[in-house]
Amino acid sequence: MAERSNADDYDRLRRRVLWSLPSGLYVLGSRHGERRNGMTLNWAMQVAIEPKRVAVSILRSAYTHELVEAGGVFSLNVLKRSDRAMVRRFVKPVVVDDRSGLLGGHPFHDGVTGAPVLDEAHAYLDCRVAQQVPVGDHTLFIGDVVDAGFLGEEGAEVLRMEDTRMNYGG
Amino acid sequence: MAERSNADDYDRLRRRVLWSLPSGLYVLGSRHGERRNGMTLNWAMQVAIEPKRVAVSILRSAYTHELVEAGGVFSLNVLKRSDRAMVRRFVKPVVVDDRSGLLGGHPFHDGVTGAPVLDEAHAYLDCRVAQQVPVGDHTLFIGDVVDAGFLGEEGAEVLRMEDTRMNYGG
Repeated sequence: MAERSNADDYDRLRRRVLWSLPSGLYVLGSRHGERRNGMTLNWAMQVAIEPKRVAVSILRSAYTHELVEAGGVFSLNVLKRSDRAMVRRFVKPVVVDDRSGLLGGHPFHDGVTGAPVLDEAHAYLDCRVAQQVPVGDHTLFIGDVVDAGFLGEEGAEVLRMEDTRMNYGG
Repeated sequence: MAERSNADDYDRLRRRVLWSLPSGLYVLGSRHGERRNGMTLNWAMQVAIEPKRVAVSILRSAYTHELVEAGGVFSLNVLKRSDRAMVRRFVKPVVVDDRSGLLGGHPFHDGVTGAPVLDEAHAYLDCRVAQQVPVGDHTLFIGDVVDAGFLGEEGAEVLRMEDTRMNYGG
């Protein structure tokens, strides 16, 4: 059992090292036809300057994966640090309420690509998928930035994973 | 000129939105044969859980790109927040000093893959390249994590891009 125990110890150690990588914490907006979703996500980064491309890594079994793959668009909603409670609403799939018109209880509008942008977001990147790369149990969707802007005050502090008690992956 | 001015304004706005995405700030170790390098990099994230994979995006014209492509390995050196001055040493290509044996003035050892791991790093991920994805002017190198560990005290604060006055990309 010593070997098994050592392997478990290493798995836990590797997980904690992976968790130590700093990241933001976003709501990823997706859309296919009239189906829209918002999902809490922290694996997002810019990956090219020319052209401007942003990558997000999405679990293959996620509803958002289905929408991004079928719709070919996504919005990366950057949140204010003070709005960290918002991400809890988007940990499970959300729908647009027929009566209130809200997405997961929050107002939104459709961006240039049609993907939902949260009105309360600090900033957003609206992207059209240019490359799709299967990576193990996730898929990297790499998008061209077709629109970007600040909705809040530009100098505000941005939400990071470390501002919460959440972890992902590892 | 109004249109040109608006396009320039949008380019600058988009750059600032891209800069607002939080990230860590690392020294990426690379090696091919006896050539080793360390490069300051902030575009790194985990991208899959099963298997454990980490992606880094590297400018195609960088010396590190040549070494990672040829050597097929990289180490991601996570730094302590208090060591932010270290990254300045790795903004330009560095060599191993024949007399001191230091890399960019810092002690290192070769990891499991042979890639250099900085002795002063807070933590490291030692990776073997599994996928290589051209993305515009950069390449995403996606590596299997073959070794990981903390070299410093596990609870220490980790260096982030926002702890410096640096920006990249945008």
